[in-house]
Amino acid sequence: MKLSVFCGISVDGFLARRDGALDFLPEEPEEHGYTDFMASVDTLLIGRKTFEIVMGFEGWVYGDKRVVVLSSGPLDLSAARARGGKVEHLDGTPESIAARLEASGARHVYVDGGVTIQGFLRAGLIQRLIVTRVPVLIGDGLPLFGALAQDVRLEHVATRTYPSGLVQTEYAVPGARPA
Amino acid sequence: MKLSVFCGISVDGFLARRDGALDFLPEEPEEHGYTDFMASVDTLLIGRKTFEIVMGFEGWVYGDKRVVVLSSGPLDLSAARARGGKVEHLDGTPESIAARLEASGARHVYVDGGVTIQGFLRAGLIQRLIVTRVPVLIGDGLPLFGALAQDVRLEHVATRTYPSGLVQTEYAVPGARPA
Repeated sequence: MKLSVFCGISVDGFLARRDGALDFLPEEPEEHGYTDFMASVDTLLIGRKTFEIVMGFEGWVYGDKRVVVLSSGPLDLSAARARGGKVEHLDGTPESIAARLEASGARHVYVDGGVTIQGFLRAGLIQRLIVTRVPVLIGDGLPLFGALAQDVRLEHVATRTYPSGLVQTEYAVPGARPA
Repeated sequence: MKLSVFCGISVDGFLARRDGALDFLPEEPEEHGYTDFMASVDTLLIGRKTFEIVMGFEGWVYGDKRVVVLSSGPLDLSAARARGGKVEHLDGTPESIAARLEASGARHVYVDGGVTIQGFLRAGLIQRLIVTRVPVLIGDGLPLFGALAQDVRLEHVATRTYPSGLVQTEYAVPGARPA
């Protein structure tokens, strides 16, 4: 099983504003690999905040993919299910979550949301990081990266630039444990 | 007069560790434009912390360039001068510093150090941003970017990648005021 991150951030490293707003992202970004990436994953693993942001959109953005929402508290999934979402609620350490996903047949997991990404990076469970930087500084917000117990060495795989000014860099994490 | 930033950071956005250590940077980075950039500037504008980090190196890294050190407190420049540094101490708002540099004949100013860069970005005085990302996450340190009063829109100029995994992106700041 492989766990990957694919996300867009401001040049100063924020996934969203403090209130979850994504208004600094391009309204209609050109295709920058999201479709191919989504086609390659079978499972999404998101945190509660990302789930709430996604529920603020119309419809359901994850199609018929399996979506696992991490939350240590109660979670009402009925509205997501009413929209056709195949959603589950899990809680536990990154290690236990990864083990449960693997046991249940997940092959490629898309990890999203700052807190969730940070926890799985700290646990050494992310194998691939695809970060797209939007050409703006927003000064404050929900950060992609956070504290670590030790340095995480990355290996540059590729960088792609897009006419709108997006810069996408793909890194492998050579020290990640095979999940 | 033009003010530019040219700096190396970890992928999570840090210029140095909390104690100023730069041990996460490649020991002998390949040439990545620093020589050409340095040749294009006549003045360096650095903060007190950067000055202290630089004084921890042997010799004097800025050659015979004019170096202006910003500090609201007292500053002992004798050791830097003993090493041949052409150093001055200034204090004031970014606007007043920029006006004084321009009046004294500066044409292209290299702004360095997190606090100094952040202050000049916030004041809308940086025209060009050249950021080189080193393929590592360090989790904590002295950040390149900080709080802003409003979004700063950037314009992607170019991205260059290097065999060691460095990714350098150059942005113009279209909203910057001409200094």
